Amino acid sequence: MRRPRIDRYLLAGVACAVCCSAAGAQAQTDPLPSWNDGPAKAAIVEFVRRTTDASSPQFVPTEKRIATFDQDGTLWVEKPTVPQLKYCLDRVSALARKKPELTSVEPFKTVLGGDRAALTKLTMSDLKKILVATLTGITTDQYQAEVKQWLATAKDPRWKKPYNELTYQPMQEVLRYLRVSGYKTYIVSGGGQDFIRTYAAQTYCIPPEQIVGAIGGTAFGYDKDGQPILTRVPKLLLNDVETGKPEGIQLMIGRRPYAAFGNSTGDRQMLEYTKAGAGERLAMLVLHDDATREYAYGPAQGLPDTREGTFTQALYDQAKNSGWIVISMKNDWKRVFSFEQ
Amino acid sequence: MRRPRIDRYLLAGVACAVCCSAAGAQAQTDPLPSWNDGPAKAAIVEFVRRTTDASSPQFVPTEKRIATFDQDGTLWVEKPTVPQLKYCLDRVSALARKKPELTSVEPFKTVLGGDRAALTKLTMSDLKKILVATLTGITTDQYQAEVKQWLATAKDPRWKKPYNELTYQPMQEVLRYLRVSGYKTYIVSGGGQDFIRTYAAQTYCIPPEQIVGAIGGTAFGYDKDGQPILTRVPKLLLNDVETGKPEGIQLMIGRRPYAAFGNSTGDRQMLEYTKAGAGERLAMLVLHDDATREYAYGPAQGLPDTREGTFTQALYDQAKNSGWIVISMKNDWKRVFSFEQ
Repeated sequence: MRRPRIDRYLLAGVACAVCCSAAGAQAQTDPLPSWNDGPAKAAIVEFVRRTTDASSPQFVPTEKRIATFDQDGTLWVEKPTVPQLKYCLDRVSALARKKPELTSVEPFKTVLGGDRAALTKLTMSDLKKILVATLTGITTDQYQAEVKQWLATAKDPRWKKPYNELTYQPMQEVLRYLRVSGYKTYIVSGGGQDFIRTYAAQTYCIPPEQIVGAIGGTAFGYDKDGQPILTRVPKLLLNDVETGKPEGIQLMIGRRPYAAFGNSTGDRQMLEYTKAGAGERLAMLVLHDDATREYAYGPAQGLPDTREGTFTQALYDQAKNSGWIVISMKNDWKRVFSFEQ
Repeated sequence: MRRPRIDRYLLAGVACAVCCSAAGAQAQTDPLPSWNDGPAKAAIVEFVRRTTDASSPQFVPTEKRIATFDQDGTLWVEKPTVPQLKYCLDRVSALARKKPELTSVEPFKTVLGGDRAALTKLTMSDLKKILVATLTGITTDQYQAEVKQWLATAKDPRWKKPYNELTYQPMQEVLRYLRVSGYKTYIVSGGGQDFIRTYAAQTYCIPPEQIVGAIGGTAFGYDKDGQPILTRVPKLLLNDVETGKPEGIQLMIGRRPYAAFGNSTGDRQMLEYTKAGAGERLAMLVLHDDATREYAYGPAQGLPDTREGTFTQALYDQAKNSGWIVISMKNDWKRVFSFEQ
């Protein structure tokens, strides 16, 4: 009876390998077909070779192979509005339909007005009120259902596609390449953990337990029928940006990554922490320098500044001085999205 | 090139299957050889059959197969003192060698005195001071090194063995049986998350990211050489007992378990939450009713009460009324430890 049980275990592995490799079936010989040859692609391939070839001095045992990825601007489009924030703004309308009194109360009045210039003037305190109103006071099941419904209907204003179709094809290939090389891939994002969990399995082939995000508290209790429920409460347990990223990695994974990918100062400490580990480590930053195919913002290398874009020149200089690899979207990516030909 | 990459993925699966099944190689036909035939063993085998047989109406896809286990008193011995607490008490001596002034300050004076009766009188406030002094203010790396060193030398007073050799062989078999059946096994313990992570891979074949425990905060910073470090700070992010268990499961896993195992009122909400899910769910409680081979404490079914033992009669009644299975250590387990013949 022992053989069949081990076979079943292996089948689980096959199922996942298929899930992770099906979309990239065209990658017969090149694991990164959407990447142009260059230092960025070479760094990834070389990192995988050195850490997975058993004869390499930098070989890393499978159980230690951890790779972490920021999401907004690293795995998918974060312009003109980070999707999680767009969700919260859209939810205000739904809330106002239930509670019409909100229409005359700030900051909800401004959000409902839809004036983009006014929206950019919202303070952190306004934003916090919006997050508390739209993300808490409901059960985890309700929240998941609401996010799913939103994601099925909301569309990005430029490409007119659901947000989770606007993932970067080259980064999808990196995720898949690392996974088939024995790496466990994690998202480490400033976005809400349970928000990302709703679509990450389908979008990135990353299960809920491998999502590290902003963590809000929940409170266990019982509904009117006496059934156990978890209610989302306005208590931030982890602010998963900057120093919060290595702290969140310790909390959720308990081990230092061997590879980390980001695109802004919010990822700086995660990359420092990753790169400081012994042996071969890979730290990469996506630079949005492609105004034609996606966006160009920075302000590193003289790119335009924007509120959300925080790839500063200081971060760029730190990358160059620390052996981190900067990915030029314009030069390193053969295509940006899977729907491009 | 695609084949070799998938083969490498499968090899990772084989490596883990070997790790998880090697110790149970004698289990040729019976996945639970240390269990006597009876309702508890039958419930486990039947649960696995129903949730993993593709033709079963209760079939659960592999990616949803989550099983959670309390540790103290469920996977290993928690008497006379829970090992994590023993660690903290032992650490007080090490601290006092560095800071002799502690020897005259309470509660450290009492701990150093070693009077067991006095120790049982420590208040929650005393205990908190001990936990803060012994668990925080050091880096995560230092803490891990200290726990490893302690575990290599500390011995249980009755069996004169390292604490992590005092795991229950029948429960090790359940962990392994569930894993080879495609379940992802988690520890969900009131003990410290990073404490358990130090030995869980070696002791239970459970990796650090599958440990849910009491979560203390960390603070990212730099050491005197400018290297990134994580320092343990006195901030409790999750008290992983009672309502904290389902809350911790949401935080770390993001999905409801299909099977949960515990032994006290601290596990009640986890079992309620597990059992309330749709489809086939398994909830089990270990009853310590074997004073000869281990301990007998309760006070369910008239067993002696003790400070740590909280299997109340009310919990026993709830189990019987809710379809939870009570495991009688005395009747259901053929042997308790692997070193018994």
